Amino acid sequence: MKSVNIPAIAVTRLSLYARNLALLDQKGVEVVSSAGLADICGVNPAQIRKDLGYFGQFGIRGVGYYVKELVYEIRKILGLEKEWRLALVGVGNLGSALLRHAQFLDQGYTFVAAFERDPKRIGKEVGNITVAPIRAMNRLVKEKGVEIGVIAIGPRWAQQAADKFVGAGIRGILNFAPVQLQCPSDLHVENVDFTRTLDRLCYQLTLNA
Amino acid sequence: MKSVNIPAIAVTRLSLYARNLALLDQKGVEVVSSAGLADICGVNPAQIRKDLGYFGQFGIRGVGYYVKELVYEIRKILGLEKEWRLALVGVGNLGSALLRHAQFLDQGYTFVAAFERDPKRIGKEVGNITVAPIRAMNRLVKEKGVEIGVIAIGPRWAQQAADKFVGAGIRGILNFAPVQLQCPSDLHVENVDFTRTLDRLCYQLTLNA
Repeated sequence: MKSVNIPAIAVTRLSLYARNLALLDQKGVEVVSSAGLADICGVNPAQIRKDLGYFGQFGIRGVGYYVKELVYEIRKILGLEKEWRLALVGVGNLGSALLRHAQFLDQGYTFVAAFERDPKRIGKEVGNITVAPIRAMNRLVKEKGVEIGVIAIGPRWAQQAADKFVGAGIRGILNFAPVQLQCPSDLHVENVDFTRTLDRLCYQLTLNA
Repeated sequence: MKSVNIPAIAVTRLSLYARNLALLDQKGVEVVSSAGLADICGVNPAQIRKDLGYFGQFGIRGVGYYVKELVYEIRKILGLEKEWRLALVGVGNLGSALLRHAQFLDQGYTFVAAFERDPKRIGKEVGNITVAPIRAMNRLVKEKGVEIGVIAIGPRWAQQAADKFVGAGIRGILNFAPVQLQCPSDLHVENVDFTRTLDRLCYQLTLNA
């Protein structure tokens, strides 16, 4: 398989294809046409062929894709055939929901540690994980082989949490705090800010009012 | 002010500027240079001037932007000077976290109803809202003037929930379920899928391993 740097949006689509193929597999579907897969995913068939085309030749002309095989191939492309170990900081409403989020587990993501500044939350069990104090981060991240830090703490503490994750040696951050984190350039940061997505929706509704 | 259809990514940046300006305002800062604002937001100053330039002339050369005034103007541009009324379906871990999410309230978003299929959850109070059965959706959406439906129910029930929201007359959907919803073309749908964002992060980590 070729290793290529494809556009971020294509990666996001690949992950959508893999998700829907896995659902088909669960239903016992063995083969799907590119038109069928396109329909389920809400994209056009040419897009699917193009996105997969970055990585080689998949599917059989006139038949379609073998579901199990394509899930496997896409997960390999995305680096999801391995288990990724995550640690979370900020076990409030959102953080607790993330620790218990079924879809993370389904996709091979495992939370192995969770940290808090609030003494009242330290020691509690959330989704099979005992919440630890932030000062234990450096040790636990190394001991448990954490690669990805998830930030679900308030905006005021997010940068400090990121600095501690970086100091402990994590490689990537998934950031739910509504702030722009300052991180070393070799660290990968992805932001999830659903208030901004909601803002975008309202802008569209206002335009078309 | 001009009403223009600017790129979605520019809308997302405007909402980032507004967020950071509001934080500056809370700290008592009255004026900020475009370089200063750019630094906080992690973009370059030319980008800020370009994004604002779609809508007119803001700021004073050699001085910068009046913080309070610019927050107000951007919120007006985004249609956020009004209160938006939201209803949520699916009061599980994620749904409960969303109902209690402080940042929604701060930004003028108000949940006025929440719905569930699970009888065990119906009647419970979550974030000041009494969880209602899905069959009450049509009536409550109309009574409470809900404009936006938030879907936090599992993938299996998401389409059905969307159909019910559409039938009840909502104008936009914020979808957290990892499925592509089939909706009428005049309805606005924005998806938040953080498993896909995490997939993208892992792809980057795999490329640079």
